[in-house]
Amino acid sequence: MKVRSILGERFKERAFDIESQNLMTRGGYIKQVGNGIYSLFTPAKRIQNKIEAILREEMDAIDGQEVLFPVVMPATLWQSSGRFESIGKELLRFKDRSGADMVLGMTHEEAAVQLAMNVAGTYQKYPFMIYQIQTKFRDEPRARGGLIRVREFTMKDAYSFHTSQEDLERYYERAYRAYERIYARAGVPEVIAVKSDSGMMGGKVSHEFMLLTDIGEDSIVTCPECGFRANMEACEAITENEADAELLPMTEVFTGEAHTIDDVGQMLGLPNEKSCKAVVYQRNADDSYVLIFCRGDREINETKLTNYLKSEIHPAVDIENANLHAGNIGPVGLTTTATVLFDRTLAGATNLVCGANKPEYHFTGFTPARDLPEGTEFIDLSKAVEGGVCPNCGKHSLKINRGIEVGNIFQLGKRYTEAMGMTYDDENGARVNPIMGCYGIGVGRLIASVCEAHHDDYGPLWPITIAPWQVEICALRANDEAVKAAADKLYEELQNAGVEVLYDDRPVSAGFMFSDADLLGAPVRVVISPKTLSRGCFELTARDKSFGGDVAVEEAKEAVIAKIRELTEAVNAKVPERM
Amino acid sequence: MKVRSILGERFKERAFDIESQNLMTRGGYIKQVGNGIYSLFTPAKRIQNKIEAILREEMDAIDGQEVLFPVVMPATLWQSSGRFESIGKELLRFKDRSGADMVLGMTHEEAAVQLAMNVAGTYQKYPFMIYQIQTKFRDEPRARGGLIRVREFTMKDAYSFHTSQEDLERYYERAYRAYERIYARAGVPEVIAVKSDSGMMGGKVSHEFMLLTDIGEDSIVTCPECGFRANMEACEAITENEADAELLPMTEVFTGEAHTIDDVGQMLGLPNEKSCKAVVYQRNADDSYVLIFCRGDREINETKLTNYLKSEIHPAVDIENANLHAGNIGPVGLTTTATVLFDRTLAGATNLVCGANKPEYHFTGFTPARDLPEGTEFIDLSKAVEGGVCPNCGKHSLKINRGIEVGNIFQLGKRYTEAMGMTYDDENGARVNPIMGCYGIGVGRLIASVCEAHHDDYGPLWPITIAPWQVEICALRANDEAVKAAADKLYEELQNAGVEVLYDDRPVSAGFMFSDADLLGAPVRVVISPKTLSRGCFELTARDKSFGGDVAVEEAKEAVIAKIRELTEAVNAKVPERM
Repeated sequence: MKVRSILGERFKERAFDIESQNLMTRGGYIKQVGNGIYSLFTPAKRIQNKIEAILREEMDAIDGQEVLFPVVMPATLWQSSGRFESIGKELLRFKDRSGADMVLGMTHEEAAVQLAMNVAGTYQKYPFMIYQIQTKFRDEPRARGGLIRVREFTMKDAYSFHTSQEDLERYYERAYRAYERIYARAGVPEVIAVKSDSGMMGGKVSHEFMLLTDIGEDSIVTCPECGFRANMEACEAITENEADAELLPMTEVFTGEAHTIDDVGQMLGLPNEKSCKAVVYQRNADDSYVLIFCRGDREINETKLTNYLKSEIHPAVDIENANLHAGNIGPVGLTTTATVLFDRTLAGATNLVCGANKPEYHFTGFTPARDLPEGTEFIDLSKAVEGGVCPNCGKHSLKINRGIEVGNIFQLGKRYTEAMGMTYDDENGARVNPIMGCYGIGVGRLIASVCEAHHDDYGPLWPITIAPWQVEICALRANDEAVKAAADKLYEELQNAGVEVLYDDRPVSAGFMFSDADLLGAPVRVVISPKTLSRGCFELTARDKSFGGDVAVEEAKEAVIAKIRELTEAVNAKVPERM
Repeated sequence: MKVRSILGERFKERAFDIESQNLMTRGGYIKQVGNGIYSLFTPAKRIQNKIEAILREEMDAIDGQEVLFPVVMPATLWQSSGRFESIGKELLRFKDRSGADMVLGMTHEEAAVQLAMNVAGTYQKYPFMIYQIQTKFRDEPRARGGLIRVREFTMKDAYSFHTSQEDLERYYERAYRAYERIYARAGVPEVIAVKSDSGMMGGKVSHEFMLLTDIGEDSIVTCPECGFRANMEACEAITENEADAELLPMTEVFTGEAHTIDDVGQMLGLPNEKSCKAVVYQRNADDSYVLIFCRGDREINETKLTNYLKSEIHPAVDIENANLHAGNIGPVGLTTTATVLFDRTLAGATNLVCGANKPEYHFTGFTPARDLPEGTEFIDLSKAVEGGVCPNCGKHSLKINRGIEVGNIFQLGKRYTEAMGMTYDDENGARVNPIMGCYGIGVGRLIASVCEAHHDDYGPLWPITIAPWQVEICALRANDEAVKAAADKLYEELQNAGVEVLYDDRPVSAGFMFSDADLLGAPVRVVISPKTLSRGCFELTARDKSFGGDVAVEEAKEAVIAKIRELTEAVNAKVPERM
């Protein structure tokens, strides 16, 4: 189609912190309708359609059956799994005209079980996988970054049903491979899978697919030595404490106004790792207190803590209620109503400084193994650190990176089928709950992530497999008859060959036209002008500058098609085989 | 794919009044999730995907650009057009976690204007059309008939923007033609366009596309003499009253307990057309009364009345409040607070019976032209009738049919662009509101309507262009090695040729297998059994019984492909040319 016809404008503003949001706003891809709610202009919708086609092919290839679940669901469906009550405000609840409680689907495990229930009643029907591509709504408190974190989004979600854990695991491997193929086909083979925490989804084994980028909201732990990868929540934090040769006695010292780890350590000439710090939370449900002690140089991971406690928590607001002295809390001589936990970073540590549970005093010489009651449990509640010990190979090799989650897969187990009473008759006629897996990819976030990972200062560098158009023809001075004739001819030839062509024949300057073309990001560009024609040529260039030069007019069509093929093959070369 | 793998079962129940709902439930196409909310199983989703592909092709062919609007929108957007206040409870309103008012999109005029606003600021950008295929929610009080009338549905909605009424009209013609093509391509060329009332959409000219069927909720008026077509709301009702030779004086007569038209007419020996009946409504806004007099044998059309009053109405609940005597209301000697209207069916009528505004009495000899005040206006508020006068050719030729609305197109004018302040600079630099059209098709309703129009007792007769699978292979006694080998081979050959094949090799009886195949509705069927193989043949039959017979094993693949081509060409032969 012609550039002048595309609804939307190209802008110059860079209003946002996140470059993909800038480029997709400037390029006329998205328009905000409300907080975390966007409309897509045609270029973004074209990208979305291409990603959806890849998703369908890969889901069909692992025996998926496309279905469609509703966006709006009765609350009773979510009550049947218990999630109507257990999920927070991100599940949007409302009443319909008859006063019935309804929800907007943020995920569809319940709907999948409801659909399959009663129509998969014998073991011969298993395994099967159903998937949909549909709009979801999650009432995010902090929408940000254009399509990176929104409230309404298009998602591919898949649900598999199995008669044994082994069968689920076999299928999970195929889905994992399908996901690798999807990212590679979308031009981001650099996406990595990391072990993750299953959170509200239930189940045990799960993976997140991460695109590493500084704007990511997730911390990912990797080990270059052995290939270990996990997100921060799912990474065991291993701390090797070497015992001091001499164990000092616990001694009360005056520390006055020094309350922070840094201040106390500086006063006493001790590094932070030689201190034992206190962190206080409250349970959301009843505001009861939880006090955790950990090594002074480490941080508590709230997800690990939540999982251990099996309840949601928030940082404590007013710790005096728990009889705690802020800045001087210590594990010895404590009188508090709080639940007291010890992080594993304290195991084996010696000669630490810690609070003395009274104003202006700390203890030195605290050695947990000696000074805590026998049988004290040390729990893994802290974050892994850069250079820390890899839980897989044991080397001090951990790296911490930022990443965007662009997909996830879960082994759900029987969490939903048990709760909702879905059963089948097995070979022996016994009624059994099937075992489930689920597999999600947010389409819009993937688009924004590809843009984030592949752009330059001037616009997105769309991989040819998902670019809104494969080729843009820039006809400079299209009022020149020869230019117009040549450009029209090439446009028609390419269209007839099934190439997706964008055609810019506006009476604007070369600079203006090229800057718009950079924002629209067609991977191949053909420039036609009186100057190139005087050489008997067009200019054929790549959006990513990987090639560029003259091509004879009569060879242009074939050259463009060859370039498209070449770029497509380069993407496909990185796609792993199907399993 | 194999029948045994499709999630879902084929059932025998006929639980519903509407046959398409029975067949789509029995066939495993749909599953109810809530009132008017359905999930689609794979067969229905495959049909939907095919219809969506047709919609995309036809919208692209009339220069449409695909976009995507949100399902959830801020109320402010709907306030900007005034519809947040003016639309009833079918617009679902709720609050998000921050307390902001939101709505679920039941149509997207506001979103279309919001998207186009600021990025179509000069006349050179016009005309353009944007469309989406997206989930909508309309909080229908009376969901019914499976996918016929639901609350959540997938819709293709398109919005065009123009700089002149002439340009809109030109485009409207193209869209009209595109709609004819869509229905013909979906296998229902019998869909007819009728002039319609624009209702809440605003604008003047509009058409509904109707599939005539007895289960339809709409009444459609057609004239076989001249081709005139309109829905009941949009059809002028013409009544020719012939004056009696002698005008009788108005005379009060005792009618006792006779209150209805029928009873009074019978008592006095007069047909209903010789009476003047009273119908009372109340305005929704303030419960104020509206009293309409019309000829006794005619019915008031509430949409005409609503449009005339410019306010929503409901049948009156307690008419004593308006000082009216139920059963004896008449136009002479009336003392009421109600707005009083006279329907056009009374113009020219003579010697009618009417209420006397006191219990147990009526008047005879009422002649409106004589007995009503001079200048009394007669308004078209009644329904056209079977055998009535055609407003186009004037013959007594009107037919009334039931129909399902499967699409609609509207000339919206400036209703939304004015309200929302969308402008562009015209050739003279003046800022002008663009003129809009809009064009909708509900995908799910179209599927159900095709099923309603094309089925037999055993299942749907899907047109080949939208059938979930083109061919079904029925391998009877697939445990027979020869049968299995032959069926596997044909399955693979057809798959490789790009044919969509469903393969049933379950160890079930022929009757069971054929009955499932009837419900799944593949237009072409190949039966392979030891018996057919003993003849060196397969059986090739049509779901609609239009052909059936043996085909030699080695010719089967080509014969199937030829049949598919033949059926496809038969559908395409009825598709009109593009404009």
